[in-house]
Amino acid sequence: MNVLIVFAHPDPRSLNAALRDEAVRELEANGHEVRISDLYRMEWKATVDHDDFPDLPSGGRLRVAQASREAFAAGSLTADVAGEIEKLRWADTVILQFPLWWFSMPAILKGWIERVYACGFAYGVGEHSDRRWGDRYGEGNLAGRRAMLVVTAGGWESHYGERGINGPIEDLLFPITHGMLHYPGFEVLPAFVAYRVDRMDEAGFRRTASDLRARMRALAETPPIPYRHQNGGDYLIPSMELRPGLEADGDRGIRMHLDRSRG
Amino acid sequence: MNVLIVFAHPDPRSLNAALRDEAVRELEANGHEVRISDLYRMEWKATVDHDDFPDLPSGGRLRVAQASREAFAAGSLTADVAGEIEKLRWADTVILQFPLWWFSMPAILKGWIERVYACGFAYGVGEHSDRRWGDRYGEGNLAGRRAMLVVTAGGWESHYGERGINGPIEDLLFPITHGMLHYPGFEVLPAFVAYRVDRMDEAGFRRTASDLRARMRALAETPPIPYRHQNGGDYLIPSMELRPGLEADGDRGIRMHLDRSRG
Repeated sequence: MNVLIVFAHPDPRSLNAALRDEAVRELEANGHEVRISDLYRMEWKATVDHDDFPDLPSGGRLRVAQASREAFAAGSLTADVAGEIEKLRWADTVILQFPLWWFSMPAILKGWIERVYACGFAYGVGEHSDRRWGDRYGEGNLAGRRAMLVVTAGGWESHYGERGINGPIEDLLFPITHGMLHYPGFEVLPAFVAYRVDRMDEAGFRRTASDLRARMRALAETPPIPYRHQNGGDYLIPSMELRPGLEADGDRGIRMHLDRSRG
Repeated sequence: MNVLIVFAHPDPRSLNAALRDEAVRELEANGHEVRISDLYRMEWKATVDHDDFPDLPSGGRLRVAQASREAFAAGSLTADVAGEIEKLRWADTVILQFPLWWFSMPAILKGWIERVYACGFAYGVGEHSDRRWGDRYGEGNLAGRRAMLVVTAGGWESHYGERGINGPIEDLLFPITHGMLHYPGFEVLPAFVAYRVDRMDEAGFRRTASDLRARMRALAETPPIPYRHQNGGDYLIPSMELRPGLEADGDRGIRMHLDRSRG
């Protein structure tokens, strides 16, 4: 299997980096091929701007989706972005690994999503009709591949639990797991989250690394989060609302999009 | 009132920028003072890295929270970050305005949060004991101030509704409204969201601008989202879980943190 790890921590001697190295060793020991996009090391350009679209007239308006669609179609995306798209096409599984900063991914990784997810590649794909609303949420160019988050958090696990003050980690990560990964087609595995990493001692690290290695060994068999496919009949078109009665008892809002009969 | 608008769109001729100008005119016409941090125009540095901490030895490890705490205490934060902290101290109300990109804020604005929210200023504040878990979630250095999001989205409103496929907009924005705004102390007003902005005609713009101006006139009186205060007795310490039975019927996960008796 081909595994791409997109890594977003600024310190090569961090616990994060040590966990990444554990994952890589385990994957390679199991015969997988691994490539890493180490965003800080690559000095990844984090902001989408006019410079991303060399063909755009220099005084022209920047309509990001339109410029992105044209550049993707013309093959005129910048080399750094084109290189990442090629890695995504190569990968069977994509892992985004990052410290949870302000309950979301670091800016540098958000900027990777914004720039690499070209229009026509990761969105704006497929037919729009009364039966389909484009190829997204389980369909699209990245369908058939798996994705997973590996996250470190400073806070306690209970603070991120069902009743925890920060909100449940699954709900906090929903804009990423559902919105950035399921949207362009990935099947999304449950996130691996390590808590209280600022206070982690050597024994804690060994336990965490061992858990992470087990997740790496199980990459191909781990059941994905059972997000619904958009065009499978569960949603009304064009309102894109879940048909009445499909949700499990007690599921409201974002949790409705889990098909617990598959879960 | 002093109003700070932190603005994150790359195109000065965008609908976003036009809406910002409408808001500014309305606020100034009502006697408020307005300052704008136009992040793209400022070429805001979006990534936290070693360069943010000039006092840190050049080969040293980068522990972001610790480096940030030391730099904030020593007054050695970089000038751009110190300038934004000064604006936050000046402001009675802070507005973050941005296009919703991949169900979250643009990387450049996320990087503003990461760099400006220094340790000792926006987090890592206050006493930790069996009665208090620091000053956060309604307390802290930004308590007593108001904050609000102004967001534009390409998708339809129903796609972001209670049953919409993207997830309800309030839930998608929770990591921002609760995690980035309520956390350092702000009272957070309901977000202003404009939908289908890529297809908006002149009449649609006039309606949207009129709605936004009304929200600007009502800034001081709009009831905030009734997020709970951390140290008011609703949460167990140190697990920081909501005490059993406090949530409204049917509220689970992130919605538990709404005190609907205030709402």
